[in-house]
Amino acid sequence: MTATAAPEHLDRTVDDVARRARETFDGLSRTAPGARAAALRDAAAALADHADELVAIAQSETGLAEARLRGELKRTQVQLRLFAHVVTDGAYLDVRLDEADSDFVLGPRPDLRRTLWPVGPVLNFAASNFPFAFSVAGGDTAAALAAGCPVIVKAHPGHPRLSVRVAELVSAALTEAGLPEFALQLVTSQDAGVALVEHPAVRAAAFTGSQRVGQLLAARAAGRPEPIPFFGELGSVNPVLASAAALRERGSELLDGYVASVSGSAGQLCTKPGFLLVPEGTRYDDAVAAAAARVPEHRLLNPSIADGYERRVAEVLGVDGVRVVHGGGFRRAADGQALVTPTLVAVPLDLLRSAGSVLLDEVFGPFSVIVEYPAEADLGAAVAELFPGNLTLTLHLGDGETGEEQGALVTRLARHAGRVLLGGWPTGVAVTPAMQHGGPWPATTTDGTSVGTAAIGRFLRGVAFQDAPQELLPPPLRDDNTWDVPRTIATRGESLGW
Amino acid sequence: MTATAAPEHLDRTVDDVARRARETFDGLSRTAPGARAAALRDAAAALADHADELVAIAQSETGLAEARLRGELKRTQVQLRLFAHVVTDGAYLDVRLDEADSDFVLGPRPDLRRTLWPVGPVLNFAASNFPFAFSVAGGDTAAALAAGCPVIVKAHPGHPRLSVRVAELVSAALTEAGLPEFALQLVTSQDAGVALVEHPAVRAAAFTGSQRVGQLLAARAAGRPEPIPFFGELGSVNPVLASAAALRERGSELLDGYVASVSGSAGQLCTKPGFLLVPEGTRYDDAVAAAAARVPEHRLLNPSIADGYERRVAEVLGVDGVRVVHGGGFRRAADGQALVTPTLVAVPLDLLRSAGSVLLDEVFGPFSVIVEYPAEADLGAAVAELFPGNLTLTLHLGDGETGEEQGALVTRLARHAGRVLLGGWPTGVAVTPAMQHGGPWPATTTDGTSVGTAAIGRFLRGVAFQDAPQELLPPPLRDDNTWDVPRTIATRGESLGW
Repeated sequence: MTATAAPEHLDRTVDDVARRARETFDGLSRTAPGARAAALRDAAAALADHADELVAIAQSETGLAEARLRGELKRTQVQLRLFAHVVTDGAYLDVRLDEADSDFVLGPRPDLRRTLWPVGPVLNFAASNFPFAFSVAGGDTAAALAAGCPVIVKAHPGHPRLSVRVAELVSAALTEAGLPEFALQLVTSQDAGVALVEHPAVRAAAFTGSQRVGQLLAARAAGRPEPIPFFGELGSVNPVLASAAALRERGSELLDGYVASVSGSAGQLCTKPGFLLVPEGTRYDDAVAAAAARVPEHRLLNPSIADGYERRVAEVLGVDGVRVVHGGGFRRAADGQALVTPTLVAVPLDLLRSAGSVLLDEVFGPFSVIVEYPAEADLGAAVAELFPGNLTLTLHLGDGETGEEQGALVTRLARHAGRVLLGGWPTGVAVTPAMQHGGPWPATTTDGTSVGTAAIGRFLRGVAFQDAPQELLPPPLRDDNTWDVPRTIATRGESLGW
Repeated sequence: MTATAAPEHLDRTVDDVARRARETFDGLSRTAPGARAAALRDAAAALADHADELVAIAQSETGLAEARLRGELKRTQVQLRLFAHVVTDGAYLDVRLDEADSDFVLGPRPDLRRTLWPVGPVLNFAASNFPFAFSVAGGDTAAALAAGCPVIVKAHPGHPRLSVRVAELVSAALTEAGLPEFALQLVTSQDAGVALVEHPAVRAAAFTGSQRVGQLLAARAAGRPEPIPFFGELGSVNPVLASAAALRERGSELLDGYVASVSGSAGQLCTKPGFLLVPEGTRYDDAVAAAAARVPEHRLLNPSIADGYERRVAEVLGVDGVRVVHGGGFRRAADGQALVTPTLVAVPLDLLRSAGSVLLDEVFGPFSVIVEYPAEADLGAAVAELFPGNLTLTLHLGDGETGEEQGALVTRLARHAGRVLLGGWPTGVAVTPAMQHGGPWPATTTDGTSVGTAAIGRFLRGVAFQDAPQELLPPPLRDDNTWDVPRTIATRGESLGW
């Protein structure tokens, strides 16, 4: 613990917080990769050292299961360490050097050197459903710090004590590792979050949450005198499409997997499959009901999410033609929290079209809709019409269904999601270089990703230096390349063949 | 000439144009790199084959000099050919392959393969001041076609005949090279442009023009039910800062270069230096006036730009304390076009602060402001306060001025511009891999670049495929890598050391 612990910050005005982030930027943006990577690893170690304490707080504040929280805390550490690798590797800077070229095809070319560079202080709105991995020290924070941006986290009210404790531990670890003070700051009030989106010192914002709040904040970011990028993850229903052959070959495994994916963490995952599309005539009732009946009661994250879940489920059940396959439980405990079991319903494809948003909008919780499609349905067209923007789309095919028809369908699906799965379930999100967690609106407000190493790109901007003396260049652009980053060089004379 | 020539398109409704772009996307996005590259080269060749005709039309429509237009046409061809290289190289796809890994630190990792992929139909608003290089077949069109996106160009009314002729030639060349029909379409009315920004088939827009129009269009792009990215280049005043030593060592060359950079193409360049900052006491009047007096009369692009120029110059001259160093000419020819020579004025630094936007806003034309700063001024702070967002910032230093003070200033400047020049002039924009033509608001609406090979990134989005059979993957993600693109591979087992 140091003087930079979070509770002290909570009392500061928004202006103070923003000013400190701005002042910190200068030093932080110039830290060498090794120092920044070491600080990220130390932050991961600080979380690991306090795992028991942190998981206990998280359990009491969120109702999530211990095993899930331990796994999520591990993931959070891995995210920090993965970005330490990204920083020392240096490929993320996309360094490009143009050699000066007096023979350039369009006339003498200067010495030009371009790198991606941190954008400035980043405001990160924490999510409720991942109290570690998408919160104070989560993926957005790790990516922004790795980029060299000071981070201000707006804590989620669903886990306030955990947020403060994680901020204390991580802030202390970063400072003790030698990063400038205030690389990570925490604010807790909604007013502070809104004010910071509009503060001139803040240069980018990241958000994971509801479409309604995300749109409000995005409008504020866009309405500033100088608009800033707003990376919002707003909502996704993650349809899963199953072919007749897939159901014939492994129907029972598929339906069990579906219910498990819908029910894990009480369905409070951004990649929960909100729809399963099966051919008309598929028999699924008994298997789905049996699997759902085996799912134990699970607490929802907080009363506000419980209210929304109760309301949305009632809306869907109120639509004529919606058939209940398994009716789940919903009861309020003495402390106001809700305990639920999964609810699965079924509709014909046509009803989705006619009922519109009441059926199509996300239901956040252990609820999903089985959609029966006619054998002759054009599934690509149906996705384009009904599910145009998602984090994931999943296609379960039978053995050997790898022909032109399926290829065209996959091409089509890839236009409407950031990740296309062939088999499996979308609720496991690998934290790796090739992950894409972001898709067409409303999945995300832009085409970035908030999971995986490419997430760092959201907090960088291109800067080129022309004819600069070595001493005035940032280290990755100098001839001696002391940061040892990969660089793409455009050599003199190469344009003569153009 | 083929049936896809532009005039036929002009009669089609906006819906038809948008629908065709959408239908074209499917085929275009799947063309092999070699085919797309060959088509881009053929388009360049078509322009070269008709250079005399095109330059003659451009001269009559824009008043730009023949040598400038021939250079610009050459640049436009080089841009197309450069993007042909980018396409065949394939690095722009940023392909990442995660090997499936049962030992992954967070539990079994699937086979995950990510590529950047074309975003869909792109709407490109042509600029007035580069009738070739930022117009129908200009940089934005080349980048979007290279990415695999169909392009709809909204022609600029300043060069209507040229726009149609270029569209005819390029459209025919692309189709004859085997690309799907309607890869390039042209619309001419303002209403069509506005309607297309809001059309669901359009997935991204690029714009070069005024801040006022750019903001209106950006708001429409953001206000759609599904917002789309809007890449606007809106305005830049490109300050040039000269140290006392630089002026002592090469004052005469520096002042000559300044006037030349202000006056080239009658100052109608997005990188024209709108401000030159010199220390108080610098003697520049005679040199600047003499250089300006040597600049021949030049036509402004069109009467609308002439009106804006006349108005803005009058506004600046109306500010108390603005001193005229060289008063330029402005006269209307019989055809309504304006003929001008450069005007240079001088102000003390303090006046910029107190007068605000009337002095600070861009004056599009051969006009610039010399700003006298006190020896003790903090130039970094002055730039942050007065010139926070620019395409370029230029610093002229004396021999050996490469110490910590200058390093800190360069770091500061790099926050407020996309390109920082050490010496030289910003009005030459190299078309190369390391160019960055885009900077903080209002220079551009996002941190992309519209010049150089990195410009292709604006028209791509990330898509990941999980556990997909080889046959269902796009070619750059298949094991056999028939497109021969560079790929970054995360190997199994690598996470064990994390």
